[in-house]
Amino acid sequence: MGKPLPDQAKQWLDGTSFPIVGTVDPDGRPQLSIVWAKRDGDAIVFSTLANRRKGRNLARDPKISVLVPNPDEPYEYVEVRGSAVVTPDPGGSLIDELSWRYNGRGFREADEKSQQRVIVRVEADHVVVYLDD
Amino acid sequence: MGKPLPDQAKQWLDGTSFPIVGTVDPDGRPQLSIVWAKRDGDAIVFSTLANRRKGRNLARDPKISVLVPNPDEPYEYVEVRGSAVVTPDPGGSLIDELSWRYNGRGFREADEKSQQRVIVRVEADHVVVYLDD
Repeated sequence: MGKPLPDQAKQWLDGTSFPIVGTVDPDGRPQLSIVWAKRDGDAIVFSTLANRRKGRNLARDPKISVLVPNPDEPYEYVEVRGSAVVTPDPGGSLIDELSWRYNGRGFREADEKSQQRVIVRVEADHVVVYLDD
Repeated sequence: MGKPLPDQAKQWLDGTSFPIVGTVDPDGRPQLSIVWAKRDGDAIVFSTLANRRKGRNLARDPKISVLVPNPDEPYEYVEVRGSAVVTPDPGGSLIDELSWRYNGRGFREADEKSQQRVIVRVEADHVVVYLDD
């Protein structure tokens, strides 16, 4: 069981926040990208491709950090640090759900790409809340 | 000499973008935070404290990634990957300059904290441009 998400992170994730995901490359360098994500209880879930850089990184090393920005205050954020659990999602049910939510339409991609879809689930083992007073 | 910054990154940094900085903790975990930053030619510079987590991380391991979001399109970004060069900035000239730019007022902090101010300079050795077509 992970730690509970702070209320701010829940609220921002239940809107349409654009979290930034950090993984670590084989050479030890941080690697960042913006994702669509949603909340599942106290976990953060997002979709990627198994053969994309962050998918490959997480398969090798599940250490991850997710920064959830406050959509209304650009200097405020919650950083959720933990380990990623990656499960196959052939057909891309999650990316399709997220696309409806963020873009108001389904997500189409080639079948051979869709077969590479995975769901990444992050539970917090450490949380940093940064609010701008 | 680092690689040139893409035009989008220059434009976003010359406005008021809120970049996300990724460093690596001693245990190999990515660590993320939002910073004020500006461009100096093809370098990205920001201020932190030597004894803050990212300052300590960079002193040990200069590998860094800076994600520059498009302020107008939340899913677009440029990721600038490179090594950080950290120099002392006692008195905090850079954080003061950035505070004027982002907040329209100077930056005040206790002297003992101000003595810990450092300037982090990042030149790109790899750049990822992610645009949402």
